[in-house]
Amino acid sequence: MADTVLFEFLHTEMVAELWAHDPDPGPGVSVGSRGEEAGATTGQKMSLSVLEGMGFRVGQALGERLPRETLAFREELDVLKFLCKDLWVAVFQKQMDSLRTNHQGTYVLQDNSFPLLLPMASGLQYLEEAPKFLAFTCGLLRGALCTLGIESVVTASVAALPVCKFQVVIPKS
Amino acid sequence: MADTVLFEFLHTEMVAELWAHDPDPGPGVSVGSRGEEAGATTGQKMSLSVLEGMGFRVGQALGERLPRETLAFREELDVLKFLCKDLWVAVFQKQMDSLRTNHQGTYVLQDNSFPLLLPMASGLQYLEEAPKFLAFTCGLLRGALCTLGIESVVTASVAALPVCKFQVVIPKS
Repeated sequence: MADTVLFEFLHTEMVAELWAHDPDPGPGVSVGSRGEEAGATTGQKMSLSVLEGMGFRVGQALGERLPRETLAFREELDVLKFLCKDLWVAVFQKQMDSLRTNHQGTYVLQDNSFPLLLPMASGLQYLEEAPKFLAFTCGLLRGALCTLGIESVVTASVAALPVCKFQVVIPKS
Repeated sequence: MADTVLFEFLHTEMVAELWAHDPDPGPGVSVGSRGEEAGATTGQKMSLSVLEGMGFRVGQALGERLPRETLAFREELDVLKFLCKDLWVAVFQKQMDSLRTNHQGTYVLQDNSFPLLLPMASGLQYLEEAPKFLAFTCGLLRGALCTLGIESVVTASVAALPVCKFQVVIPKS
């Protein structure tokens, strides 16, 4: 029971903590200890990037613990299906709701009730708060893909809470 | 499987992240964005306190999800036993190895192979690195106790990895 929610509680604290350390510095405040130059926007971008990086490394580590048969994946699409099913269940105890692709390296993974957004009210009210709850998971997907040998760019968008779309773009080499 | 290790991976990243942001500032570097005055020691104390605070809030939140019958605890010792058994299993998938008390409000909880220290080599080699892997859990215990109506001071000590003792002191009111 509790270990299911433990990840979500810890994620919430982590987001809050990173945001608390990047307040809007008043005028005259110079370069902070993190190297951000000035302004809340830069600090927030930094926090998003930190969260994404943490997600990436956790995704890599999880990827390394995947069952060996996953190494036999030949098709990109199989790998993506695996993330939508097995990885999502392992992390969020549910499967991704849909997976679409243009068959040219772009995949859209949709979760209709993304667990990390559920604590927020539904609808449009807190939409601008959403990005900070998505960065870690974007990194998680990118990290797991990396362990499976696929370089990618992962972004997320929310049109209405708690529905979330993750876009995975795999550049053709 | 993966959700068991997810907490541990995320905890590792969180510790690394907080430490990365508190490097030893060179001479001439003044007050950082977190308000630390100077020196790695102050920054590290700050990070420990941040980790402890995150643990506290997660412990409080977990405490609120405990089964209702736990609210019927009358004796302090029952509450401590509950932490050693149910809380520890929920978070670390194992029970605490021993619980001792002087019957005057001091309790020593010993875990002979504390999971968050296991990734480190055993013995004395990395002993000085241990405190940063204990702060979150000290907070977790304090937070869970707080939700159960008990104010406490929780500290941890390591004599040889991965054995860890948590000392809970409950001031008499």
